Amino acid sequence: MPEGQTEKPLYIPLILGTPRQGRQSEHVAMFLLSEIRKRPEIETELIDVRALKMTLSDAGREMQDPEYAKKILRADGLVIVVPEYNHGYPGLLKHALDMCLDEYIHKAVGFCGVSAGPFGGSRVIENLLPVVRELGLVATSTDLNFSKVQDAFDDAGRLTDEKYVGRAAKFLNELVWMTRVLRYGRETIPPL
Amino acid sequence: MPEGQTEKPLYIPLILGTPRQGRQSEHVAMFLLSEIRKRPEIETELIDVRALKMTLSDAGREMQDPEYAKKILRADGLVIVVPEYNHGYPGLLKHALDMCLDEYIHKAVGFCGVSAGPFGGSRVIENLLPVVRELGLVATSTDLNFSKVQDAFDDAGRLTDEKYVGRAAKFLNELVWMTRVLRYGRETIPPL
Amino acid sequence: MPEGQTEKPLYIPLILGTPRQGRQSEHVAMFLLSEIRKRPEIETELIDVRALKMTLSDAGREMQDPEYAKKILRADGLVIVVPEYNHGYPGLLKHALDMCLDEYIHKAVGFCGVSAGPFGGSRVIENLLPVVRELGLVATSTDLNFSKVQDAFDDAGRLTDEKYVGRAAKFLNELVWMTRVLRYGRETIPPL
Amino acid sequence: MPEGQTEKPLYIPLILGTPRQGRQSEHVAMFLLSEIRKRPEIETELIDVRALKMTLSDAGREMQDPEYAKKILRADGLVIVVPEYNHGYPGLLKHALDMCLDEYIHKAVGFCGVSAGPFGGSRVIENLLPVVRELGLVATSTDLNFSKVQDAFDDAGRLTDEKYVGRAAKFLNELVWMTRVLRYGRETIPPL
Repeated sequence: MPEGQTEKPLYIPLILGTPRQGRQSEHVAMFLLSEIRKRPEIETELIDVRALKMTLSDAGREMQDPEYAKKILRADGLVIVVPEYNHGYPGLLKHALDMCLDEYIHKAVGFCGVSAGPFGGSRVIENLLPVVRELGLVATSTDLNFSKVQDAFDDAGRLTDEKYVGRAAKFLNELVWMTRVLRYGRETIPPL
Repeated sequence: MPEGQTEKPLYIPLILGTPRQGRQSEHVAMFLLSEIRKRPEIETELIDVRALKMTLSDAGREMQDPEYAKKILRADGLVIVVPEYNHGYPGLLKHALDMCLDEYIHKAVGFCGVSAGPFGGSRVIENLLPVVRELGLVATSTDLNFSKVQDAFDDAGRLTDEKYVGRAAKFLNELVWMTRVLRYGRETIPPL
Repeated sequence: MPEGQTEKPLYIPLILGTPRQGRQSEHVAMFLLSEIRKRPEIETELIDVRALKMTLSDAGREMQDPEYAKKILRADGLVIVVPEYNHGYPGLLKHALDMCLDEYIHKAVGFCGVSAGPFGGSRVIENLLPVVRELGLVATSTDLNFSKVQDAFDDAGRLTDEKYVGRAAKFLNELVWMTRVLRYGRETIPPL
Repeated sequence: MPEGQTEKPLYIPLILGTPRQGRQSEHVAMFLLSEIRKRPEIETELIDVRALKMTLSDAGREMQDPEYAKKILRADGLVIVVPEYNHGYPGLLKHALDMCLDEYIHKAVGFCGVSAGPFGGSRVIENLLPVVRELGLVATSTDLNFSKVQDAFDDAGRLTDEKYVGRAAKFLNELVWMTRVLRYGRETIPPL
C-alpha cells in the first residue's frame, strides 16, 4: 500500500462452531474475540452457529441463511472455533458451512481447536482441511489449540492460563498476514 | 455355529445420511435396502436422518433421540449411505452419529458413497474414517461408490445401471462377514 | 475355545516405523515390546523399517522384501510405532507397508503415536487410517500416545513416566481382543 | 505490478512423486511439463524423487539433499504429480518432502492425482493436505485428476485423451494465480 494511505480494516468474523448446551468453546470464542478487538486492523463479529437460520429438513445452498451469506461474502478471512466431537467436526458447523460456496473463495481461515482432552482439538482441524479447501478457503498453518479447555477458564469464563494470550497473538499474526495477502490478490491480481 | 442351528438374523439398519430436499441418495438407499432384503441373514430398516428427533440448539448425547439410540444399541452392523458435500460429510449425519457412543462399540459399518461427480463419494468416506473409528465402529474395506448418481436411476428412482447389483453384492458380502465376526466376538470373547 | 484347550499364541509383530538416526521411537518400541513379552498369549518380534530390504528406485509389491512378507502373512495382528513427521507418516514406513497387500487382510492393527510435541502423534494416526483400511487391516480404537517423548525416557532408554504402563495395558487389551476375534473369523467364518 | 514492467518468471518445479519402475505418472509429468513450458510466465524443471540423494537409514532434514533444498528454496510454487498407493502417498515422496521445512513456507502447491482406477487419485490428495499445510505450503483447490491413467496415454507416452489439455489449463491458471499472490505477499507484506 502506498505510504500515508490507510488500510481498510480486514473483516474477519469468528464462527463459534457448536450449538451444544454448556459449550466450553463459548469461553474460547469470547476470549479470542476480545483479543481480536485489540487490533485496529481487524473488524470482527461473532457468527454463532446456534443463532443461524437453518433447518433439520434440508441442506446446502437451498437453505441458505441470507444473513450468514452476507457476512461470508463481505469477509476477508474467518476464524473458526471448533470443538472436537469424536475426532470430527460438529454437525451443525458443517451444516452452516455448506450453505455457501463462491462466497468463500480465496479468503483465509484460521482454526482454533478445542478439546476436553489433552490434544487440543488437533484431530478436528485435520478433519476440516479437505472441506475448507473445497470451499476455496486457504487455511493458515498456525493453529490455536485449547487442550483441557475446562482448566483454562474459571466459572465466569475468564481466562486463567495466560500462556494463551501469546499463542493467540501468534495465531492472529499469521491469519492477518494471509488475509492481507489474499485480499490484495482478490482485488488486484486478475484470474487467468 | 453348531450344525443344524439357525443363525439369528444380523440386524443391520441403513442410515440415509442427508435430509436434503431432492436428495439423490434416497434412490441409492431404496435400491440398497431392496438388495439387503433379498438376504434372509439380514434384518434391516431405514434410519432417515431427516426423520430423527434432533434440535438446532444442542449436540451430542444430551439431545439423544431415544428411538435412534435403541436401534443403534440393537444393531449388529450399519450401512451408511452418504453423499459428499464439499469433500466432507453432511452436517446432519454427524449431528445424528454424535447422539450415541457406547452403543456403536465393536460393530461393523459399510460405506456407500454418493456423488454427482465422477469420484463416487470417495472423499467423504475418507473423511468419515476417523469419526467411525472413534465411535468404536469397524469400517469394512469394500465400499460401494455411486458416481454421477443422477445417471444411475430414472425419474421414478429405478436403477438403470445394472452393474451396481453385482457391486452391492460384493459390498454386502464383506459387511455380512465382518458383522458376523464381530457379533461372535461381542457375544463370546471376553474383553481383557 | 473349548475348555481345557490351549490357545495358540497370537503372533503380533511390532513395526518400528522410522529409520531416523537418533529416533526416540526406538525407546517406545523397546518398552512396548517388553510389555508385550509379559503376556503369554502373544508372540512378538521387532520389524524395524531400517532393517528391511528396500530400494530407493522402486515401490510396491515389485520390490517386496520376502522376509517382511513372510512375517506379515503369518501375523494375526500388528503394532505400529509411528512418529509424526509434518502431521503425516514417515515415508519409509509407507514404503514398507506398500510392499504387501493380501497379506494384511482381516488382521488387527494398533497404533502407538509418538511426538516431540504435546499431541502424542494423534495426527499421524488419523493420516494412516485410510491406508490401513485399504490394506484390509482393522484399526483398533484404543491408541497409545506418547507426547513429549524425550521426557518419558532417560538417556538409557528406560521409561521414567510410569503412567505409560497402564496405558500400554489398555492398548494391548483392546488389540488382543480384536486380534482374537479376527483370527476366529479368518479361520472359522467363511467369506460369502 | 506497474505497467510496462516485466514480471520475473514464476519458478514452479514439478515433483514426480514416485520412483516405481514402470510408473505411469511419468507420462503425466511429461505432459504437464510440456503444458507448463508453453507459458512464458513460468519457469519449471523436473524434480524426480527417483533421482534425489536420499538414504534408507535416515529421515528428515538431517539427510537433506542440498540440490533439492536449493530448488525448493528458490521455488515460488510447486506441482506435485502423485499416484495413489493404498489411498495414501508414495513413501518416497514423503521421504523427499520431509527433507525441508522453512523452504516451503508461504508458497503454492497444486496437486495432480494419478490412479489406475476411476477416482483420479482423489484420495491421495486428501491424504496429503495435512502434510503440505504443516510444511507451510498453500494448496490450491483446483486439482488435476488422471483416472485410468493407462488409457490416457499411448505406449510412447503421448496423450490420447485431449480433454486433459483444457483441464491442465484450468489447473495451471489457478496455480499461477496463487503463486503470484503469495510471491507478492512474501516480497511485500511484512510478517507481523
